Amino acid sequence: MRNKAGLALLVGGLLVAAQALAADAKPRSRDLGIAPGILKTGQHNAITDVQGVLVGQVTLVDAQDVRTGVTAILPHGGNLYQDKVPAGLYVANGYGKLTGISQIQELGEIETPILLTNTLSVPQAAEAIIGWTLKQPGNEQVVSVNAVVGETNDSRLNDIRKRALKAEHGLKAITSASSGPVAEGAVGAGTGTVAFGWKGGVGTSSRVLPAKLGGYTVGVLVQSNYGGVLQIAGQPVGEALGQYYLKDALDSEVADGSIMLIVATDAPLSDRNLTRLAKRAVAGLARTGASFTNGSGDYVLSFSTAASVRRTAERRDEVSSSQSVPNGSMSPLFQAVIEASEEAIYNSMLKATDTCGTRSDTGKANCVKALPLEQLKALLTTSN
Amino acid sequence: MRNKAGLALLVGGLLVAAQALAADAKPRSRDLGIAPGILKTGQHNAITDVQGVLVGQVTLVDAQDVRTGVTAILPHGGNLYQDKVPAGLYVANGYGKLTGISQIQELGEIETPILLTNTLSVPQAAEAIIGWTLKQPGNEQVVSVNAVVGETNDSRLNDIRKRALKAEHGLKAITSASSGPVAEGAVGAGTGTVAFGWKGGVGTSSRVLPAKLGGYTVGVLVQSNYGGVLQIAGQPVGEALGQYYLKDALDSEVADGSIMLIVATDAPLSDRNLTRLAKRAVAGLARTGASFTNGSGDYVLSFSTAASVRRTAERRDEVSSSQSVPNGSMSPLFQAVIEASEEAIYNSMLKATDTCGTRSDTGKANCVKALPLEQLKALLTTSN
Amino acid sequence: MRNKAGLALLVGGLLVAAQALAADAKPRSRDLGIAPGILKTGQHNAITDVQGVLVGQVTLVDAQDVRTGVTAILPHGGNLYQDKVPAGLYVANGYGKLTGISQIQELGEIETPILLTNTLSVPQAAEAIIGWTLKQPGNEQVVSVNAVVGETNDSRLNDIRKRALKAEHGLKAITSASSGPVAEGAVGAGTGTVAFGWKGGVGTSSRVLPAKLGGYTVGVLVQSNYGGVLQIAGQPVGEALGQYYLKDALDSEVADGSIMLIVATDAPLSDRNLTRLAKRAVAGLARTGASFTNGSGDYVLSFSTAASVRRTAERRDEVSSSQSVPNGSMSPLFQAVIEASEEAIYNSMLKATDTCGTRSDTGKANCVKALPLEQLKALLTTSN
Amino acid sequence: MRNKAGLALLVGGLLVAAQALAADAKPRSRDLGIAPGILKTGQHNAITDVQGVLVGQVTLVDAQDVRTGVTAILPHGGNLYQDKVPAGLYVANGYGKLTGISQIQELGEIETPILLTNTLSVPQAAEAIIGWTLKQPGNEQVVSVNAVVGETNDSRLNDIRKRALKAEHGLKAITSASSGPVAEGAVGAGTGTVAFGWKGGVGTSSRVLPAKLGGYTVGVLVQSNYGGVLQIAGQPVGEALGQYYLKDALDSEVADGSIMLIVATDAPLSDRNLTRLAKRAVAGLARTGASFTNGSGDYVLSFSTAASVRRTAERRDEVSSSQSVPNGSMSPLFQAVIEASEEAIYNSMLKATDTCGTRSDTGKANCVKALPLEQLKALLTTSN
Repeated sequence: MRNKAGLALLVGGLLVAAQALAADAKPRSRDLGIAPGILKTGQHNAITDVQGVLVGQVTLVDAQDVRTGVTAILPHGGNLYQDKVPAGLYVANGYGKLTGISQIQELGEIETPILLTNTLSVPQAAEAIIGWTLKQPGNEQVVSVNAVVGETNDSRLNDIRKRALKAEHGLKAITSASSGPVAEGAVGAGTGTVAFGWKGGVGTSSRVLPAKLGGYTVGVLVQSNYGGVLQIAGQPVGEALGQYYLKDALDSEVADGSIMLIVATDAPLSDRNLTRLAKRAVAGLARTGASFTNGSGDYVLSFSTAASVRRTAERRDEVSSSQSVPNGSMSPLFQAVIEASEEAIYNSMLKATDTCGTRSDTGKANCVKALPLEQLKALLTTSN
Repeated sequence: MRNKAGLALLVGGLLVAAQALAADAKPRSRDLGIAPGILKTGQHNAITDVQGVLVGQVTLVDAQDVRTGVTAILPHGGNLYQDKVPAGLYVANGYGKLTGISQIQELGEIETPILLTNTLSVPQAAEAIIGWTLKQPGNEQVVSVNAVVGETNDSRLNDIRKRALKAEHGLKAITSASSGPVAEGAVGAGTGTVAFGWKGGVGTSSRVLPAKLGGYTVGVLVQSNYGGVLQIAGQPVGEALGQYYLKDALDSEVADGSIMLIVATDAPLSDRNLTRLAKRAVAGLARTGASFTNGSGDYVLSFSTAASVRRTAERRDEVSSSQSVPNGSMSPLFQAVIEASEEAIYNSMLKATDTCGTRSDTGKANCVKALPLEQLKALLTTSN
Repeated sequence: MRNKAGLALLVGGLLVAAQALAADAKPRSRDLGIAPGILKTGQHNAITDVQGVLVGQVTLVDAQDVRTGVTAILPHGGNLYQDKVPAGLYVANGYGKLTGISQIQELGEIETPILLTNTLSVPQAAEAIIGWTLKQPGNEQVVSVNAVVGETNDSRLNDIRKRALKAEHGLKAITSASSGPVAEGAVGAGTGTVAFGWKGGVGTSSRVLPAKLGGYTVGVLVQSNYGGVLQIAGQPVGEALGQYYLKDALDSEVADGSIMLIVATDAPLSDRNLTRLAKRAVAGLARTGASFTNGSGDYVLSFSTAASVRRTAERRDEVSSSQSVPNGSMSPLFQAVIEASEEAIYNSMLKATDTCGTRSDTGKANCVKALPLEQLKALLTTSN
Repeated sequence: MRNKAGLALLVGGLLVAAQALAADAKPRSRDLGIAPGILKTGQHNAITDVQGVLVGQVTLVDAQDVRTGVTAILPHGGNLYQDKVPAGLYVANGYGKLTGISQIQELGEIETPILLTNTLSVPQAAEAIIGWTLKQPGNEQVVSVNAVVGETNDSRLNDIRKRALKAEHGLKAITSASSGPVAEGAVGAGTGTVAFGWKGGVGTSSRVLPAKLGGYTVGVLVQSNYGGVLQIAGQPVGEALGQYYLKDALDSEVADGSIMLIVATDAPLSDRNLTRLAKRAVAGLARTGASFTNGSGDYVLSFSTAASVRRTAERRDEVSSSQSVPNGSMSPLFQAVIEASEEAIYNSMLKATDTCGTRSDTGKANCVKALPLEQLKALLTTSN
């Protein structure tokens, strides 16, 4: 038994390595000339272009039926509980299990890492966050932790009922988080996700405002597992490839699912304006052809890393000064988050690789293809 | 015809004068030893104890069937459109016609006077606000005005379908607004209101925090027109006097209606914390025995007059510093608004005088008594 | 003076007639092959394809500076107050003056016609609704009316501070409302609106679900006055034509404004699912390239005309049966509203005609061109 | 080590038994003549008076520093996932970790038992719910579970950082749930809670409407751990006993905390009207003298057990009939929930027993007294 499990994990490890290699070879959206909008990207075209933001991912794959993982996003590398960041939240469709909602909305802040994982592993991820937070130096007297865990349902490729993901995996995602480029596609929380009937996954993108508009950076990371009628840069890709929601009127398989979008910015924003920023990310989602179906839990979390709005211990009880972007100067940031969200989604699909696993509901083997790159290129060429 | 109307107005004027004299002679809550809570009041025990806040009222009464009016609250005496104040809003029960809601919630600010009036005169009051705002020096290029008008339904004493209140009355309430003591009872927007089956009206109260908690002032003004099972300082007055909701199981007359609560403070608060402050006012309302019935539109609007959070022209487009009370220091303000709301309601009823008018739905004469003072005193004595 | 004003109105009338003729000659979206989505339209491809829905419009133009109007949408032709319809509301960005919000949200229903007009004429439109409602046979005892008025700001072409639109115009829009085709472009509430720097206006579209998905109809009517980076069917029209938000970094003229979207359906929906339906309309808006700027008040109102959910007098106080589409069958309706919203917006711009007027803020003459049709055709051809 | 732990648990068991005996001997609110409101109670004056509702509790106490537990509320005894109940939610102050929020709000339903526990054990309780749900017969294909876990912070008596409560305890609370009388005071989720500086705990109460108002039952169960200036039946008990918020201006110990209120009814209600019902429970809370401080997470969850609104498998995808109480008949239910909430809180305190444990933040021993019964009786006698 132990040997069998060990073998399964070994094979799983090889699968992960092979997939990572395959993902490396694949183009990102911009490599194909798909560059939504009018603003420039940051250095890595990733959420980590927002200085201080860290991302860590753990991919969990065995030989047969485990295809899942966890992705950690840390607003900064310090003590997140003592130095909270202002945050916003938008629920486009609330069919999901995101934890921490009411405290984010009431106090306008996040005090932990954000973890993304699969639907049934939310308690394990929350446990990872609580355990890690209690152990951070300086948190010896902490007795309340608002763990923020988002999820999508990877049960079309992962035996989600097996509950393979444990708190230790969440913890590893947190402690391994780093700056710089972010792995995309079938990795971390995107290991077993499906988008528009093709393989979905983790994707990221960023935008930088011109200096005279503040020069701020906005970064987005997504876990894509949703659907509809796929458009890429406005091209009706889903229809052209014959795979879209309502093609066969009673099949919702290419539409249901969910998406988590995490938005980071270094612009000093109030929690109210962070909520407004979060809301705009959905416009990028809409432009990919999302149908926003009943079963799709669509959420956006946003936070600001700016020092002038950080809620340090000194600022939590005393009246103190803060500086933030007023309503009247928010619009360029709105444009930025729309563009980065759309592109992050394309990246999540383009970097994803063909994945086989097990459907949880039927227990049967299931393979989901990545977007067919050559066909996609042909479609995009024709249209330009 | 003209003479008849003129006579009606003359008689109305005499009625108003008589009622004002009668109100002057009546005790306020505190005069009867009813002093909810543990904090001290401000100088006038009124919303105007928050420095800069102005109140103006116009009472509209004719000989027979007009019993209505309008009350104006101005956050400050300057150009409200150019120097907006941060604001919060809480809708306890949304069966009402408050205008300006979405812009207050989205931008977190008020840019006009607040007018309170009767349900069917909201457009006229909104017109007064827009007209006045467009004409203020400095507003020559203003093309958008978010008029804030609240209301309750005075149709049990006022022929509300007659639409007697015009924009000119709203305008007069605005331009006559002043600081200092505030007339209470059957005056302004409270002229024809009913609470718990007795005469309701306008009432006000305030609280001042101890210096070591910031020394801030919180003031409340209410337009009471609601009901339930009246309690005063916890005493079951409604039951003792035999008049309460569900006494006769099918009669909702002593419960329906509405209440508007306006909360002002000089504490520098963010719009989010002003919203939280507004929410707490409802606890004061609950303590009076409100049943929060389906037909009762119960609303709280709050704003801060503090210079450090005022949204002047300079601050609306540029990043600038502001200072505000953090989450961790909000609780004493919450206690203050609960106490002041409860007492403002008692004042609205205690200062109200017996009023006769016409029921709009039946067209029949109707008289509503003020709370019976001697009986009330007896009840309160027994319980202490 | 009277002659001059009369002449101005006469010239205005001629302008309206000329514009109507010009609009008739212009193609709708579908005539150009722009047919968003995968579902079929109803007979007129209009909100009036939802049986019973009526639309009425009054266009107000004089020789020089009045370019405004009002559009009425009636959920049905009966007594709307006595036979209320369930309704939903979504505020994408709340910088606007929509009235009636809290009661729609609290009770989940609409009890009046919906009027759309300009920002500063909301009180006049609300007065029209109240006056009309009080006078309907059967409403003799009505003492409370929740008037629903939406608006966008037409001050770039209309001297909005002149306040030319009166309650009588709103009343005429209500009483002239009819079924069948709906006039689009620079008409009614769209007379002076601007979208993406081109002429906006009123537009409409509809979708019909396949019989096995219920066969329901969803209709949308928009008043477009917003902006961003225009896309049409995914083509970057704004960039191609050199007119888009942030082209010149500090100019927000092609982005600010607002949009009202009215959604009707004959599907029997609960108010909660109507709210969810309203939320999805914004996805159609997003696909046109909206930047959802700070200054853009973006609202969606939805209602169901189905008899089985109508709130008749009998159903308002007694427990009674109703039939509604469950959560699990909502998704096709979501797809429908997204498609119809996108197409309604294209229609609003394509049917709009070049319009000259006066900027309210500067008092200077201003002309706004319609989308250049030939250039647009060329762009669309190239891309297909 | 094992022996020591075993001894601790043994001593803990004795403590629990002793406390249960002590609680049995204590009066409930009504036994002291404290009977808020005007409506009658159900048979047990408990949430279980709503037919079908089950409650299970596990108390976790060791010799020294564990004083915590878990309370389960099951809307019915069948398959909760397959036969979901409509539900509502109100967040009075969102400083808390309630899970499941967005799905309750989006879909208007609950599909699992509700568990209440301590702040840091939410993941363990959520795990209990998910594990139990996946194993229920008929749920073999379930891949998504919206676990609903509420909490308050018992760290003033419980070493909350020790994380003693495990999923197995939550599971036992679920599987042991039963109808009939409910244990109150320092039991289950109320084992270590504190209210107004005295011992808080679990409490329950119910109200039954007169037959001509529908004859419906409303039941409430609370986990009290909050504070302010205690009033009982309107009497200023906190002031009289010298223990209240802001007595010593800088001490928030008697005010912070949280409260969870669970509301059940057999009235057939829509999710919207269940949300409105939940909102009213806070009025009962307000009448106890709650200060609604920043640190108090105050939540109300409500559900209906009526068959005519239950969301069975058949009703989740197909249009089907349902019967529900209309807006116009909700008010008596609002009155009922206010009364039952107030009384449930008094019961939670009156049945609670003196409890000693360990403060988590300081690690020091701490004892919290129950309300002093004789003093309380004296106060109440004087006032009547």
